[in-house]
Amino acid sequence: MSSRFRTIAEDLGSAARAGLLETPHGTVETPAFMPVASQGTVKALTHAQVESVGAQIILVNSYHLSLRPGVEAVEAMGGLHTYISWPRPILTDSGGFQIYSLSPLVQVSDEGVRFASHLDGSRVFLTPEDAVDLQARMGADILMCLDYFPAYPYAEETMAEAVRLTTAWARRARERFARTDGPQQLWGISQGGVSPGLRRRSIEELVALEFPGYAYGGLGIGEPKTRLLEVLETGNTLFPRTKPRYLMGMGYIEDILEAVERGVDLFDCVLPTRNARNGTLFTSRGRVSIKNVKYARDPRPLDESCACYTCQNFSRAYLRHLFERQEMSSAVLNTIHNLHFYLDIFRRIRHSIESNSFPILKKSIISKETEKEEPT
Amino acid sequence: MSSRFRTIAEDLGSAARAGLLETPHGTVETPAFMPVASQGTVKALTHAQVESVGAQIILVNSYHLSLRPGVEAVEAMGGLHTYISWPRPILTDSGGFQIYSLSPLVQVSDEGVRFASHLDGSRVFLTPEDAVDLQARMGADILMCLDYFPAYPYAEETMAEAVRLTTAWARRARERFARTDGPQQLWGISQGGVSPGLRRRSIEELVALEFPGYAYGGLGIGEPKTRLLEVLETGNTLFPRTKPRYLMGMGYIEDILEAVERGVDLFDCVLPTRNARNGTLFTSRGRVSIKNVKYARDPRPLDESCACYTCQNFSRAYLRHLFERQEMSSAVLNTIHNLHFYLDIFRRIRHSIESNSFPILKKSIISKETEKEEPT
Repeated sequence: MSSRFRTIAEDLGSAARAGLLETPHGTVETPAFMPVASQGTVKALTHAQVESVGAQIILVNSYHLSLRPGVEAVEAMGGLHTYISWPRPILTDSGGFQIYSLSPLVQVSDEGVRFASHLDGSRVFLTPEDAVDLQARMGADILMCLDYFPAYPYAEETMAEAVRLTTAWARRARERFARTDGPQQLWGISQGGVSPGLRRRSIEELVALEFPGYAYGGLGIGEPKTRLLEVLETGNTLFPRTKPRYLMGMGYIEDILEAVERGVDLFDCVLPTRNARNGTLFTSRGRVSIKNVKYARDPRPLDESCACYTCQNFSRAYLRHLFERQEMSSAVLNTIHNLHFYLDIFRRIRHSIESNSFPILKKSIISKETEKEEPT
Repeated sequence: MSSRFRTIAEDLGSAARAGLLETPHGTVETPAFMPVASQGTVKALTHAQVESVGAQIILVNSYHLSLRPGVEAVEAMGGLHTYISWPRPILTDSGGFQIYSLSPLVQVSDEGVRFASHLDGSRVFLTPEDAVDLQARMGADILMCLDYFPAYPYAEETMAEAVRLTTAWARRARERFARTDGPQQLWGISQGGVSPGLRRRSIEELVALEFPGYAYGGLGIGEPKTRLLEVLETGNTLFPRTKPRYLMGMGYIEDILEAVERGVDLFDCVLPTRNARNGTLFTSRGRVSIKNVKYARDPRPLDESCACYTCQNFSRAYLRHLFERQEMSSAVLNTIHNLHFYLDIFRRIRHSIESNSFPILKKSIISKETEKEEPT
């Protein structure tokens, strides 16, 4: 398999790198953030708006779409890109995360995972091969292996078993995928939580299987931050530098910066979009809770330094009014801003790596305390 | 007051005319349709999307905005246009319709109307002068007089009293408005239901007061269609041809065409936007209820002949999926389409009047039965 990822710049003082990830639907500049389009739509936005904020790739949940409308329907419509009319790259997850977090009655065996649909309780059985077939039929650009992980906190032996299963499933997924002859790529997901030995074992076993990309799974579920950083450092030494690395589901800007510094290339998270709908907005000066009455007559944009459609056109007072009236355009305008804010940080991250100033950028963003409330 | 409306083309065989309505925020080509932005936003759309479908003027409810955020807040923010960041013309209604339809405990006297806020039950008293002041302070381009009308069906003497009050209030509103020295304009609203004598009296009394524009109020609330058409014919003979006429709140395409034929220039209705959110979509071949299972694998756009963003990019199958998943983008894409459909019909109406083919256009649109379900 020819390499479809190449590094174009490396930070001198850390493992941060800027790269290009080629897919059948275009090239993604990394480090990249994928807005989450669970049901084939980034919540509240049109695709045109998603493109306008600078998204180059989106994440679609194969679990949701396989339940409704079903893989047959997506396939009959010409595949995922045609069905949802998104012409750029798509990564689908295997459904593992949704199964373990949404479904009742989950039973995991060597063969696969049996669970009840969270919609109607009907019993579903999914093997690692099924997860590959399903995603391949949908036609995503990047497919993810079915993995398994227990909830945090977990017993060491439970996690050891999860790592064993995840590797075994990854091998079967790899074999199944090898039969396909398409331009798609299948990435492996490492598990092991924050247990150094188990994460190391998981990564080494995956690397031996030679995937074109690798993910950190099962993180951001309550583990201490220092342990998370240790995992990323371990991964940075073990994953081949020629392959892209994806930190699944983690969206705090600080964590993203730490992860980029440790060689991570790809991210996804519902944080910016979900927070937008809840009225929590990110700005270069900190968080804004737009429902606060202090914004009722505030003529300023959310963020003076932001070039998004929302900040270029609307006041905090109007945004508060829309939020309070529960107008859908509140969710739309807020989501445009939060996603633009995120994607702009990624643009700046890439630029800083190319111009050898990533540590300065990281420090300046973290010192502005973007996770905290905007100072008055 | 210099004329701010001029006719640029007249249909030879009917009273239909195309005109230009000048306002401080730009010129509106008539016949025109105003999307309804009750709370200062067309539901589900950004202003950019409202402009992209071709809207030249929107209607904002002064009733809603005067309760929340309040006229002081709107004024403090620089007026309605600045507050909501809509740079084009705005017409505000007086609140009459909202008061009679939303508020409990409405008491109408010669002085004005006393009602309970539909939000918190607090008692509000609104005079015709208040309604003018409130709209003038908000800064709309076109203000409407406070009117009064009873629910349909009504006793003749009840309507006679409503006409008397509406004229008396219009006179007071006119006097109050005469004190302002701005570029805004205040229009009168006729009442009288479908009673020929009362509607005639109402119109004649209003015309004597010399407003720069006139509306038909209290229609589209259950009266027979033939009676409605009679009212429009009466109005067409009584309203000066030099002034614009506005049929309030009526949105069926057939009724709009009949009204244009009888000299009406301006319309507003929640029909296209509300129906969009409920999944009922207008097409050149008839109505489509997008939730119907028959669209689950339908790769066609809603309307093959439509140039809107939705039809240019998405299939019925995807639109059905979004509707079924209750995604906000369903409301967004559906509203873009329905509004584009309406505003496109208005573009065609204007063009047909200018090219002397309005009767042909009217016949062709009505024969396509846009109000009925699309044939299979």
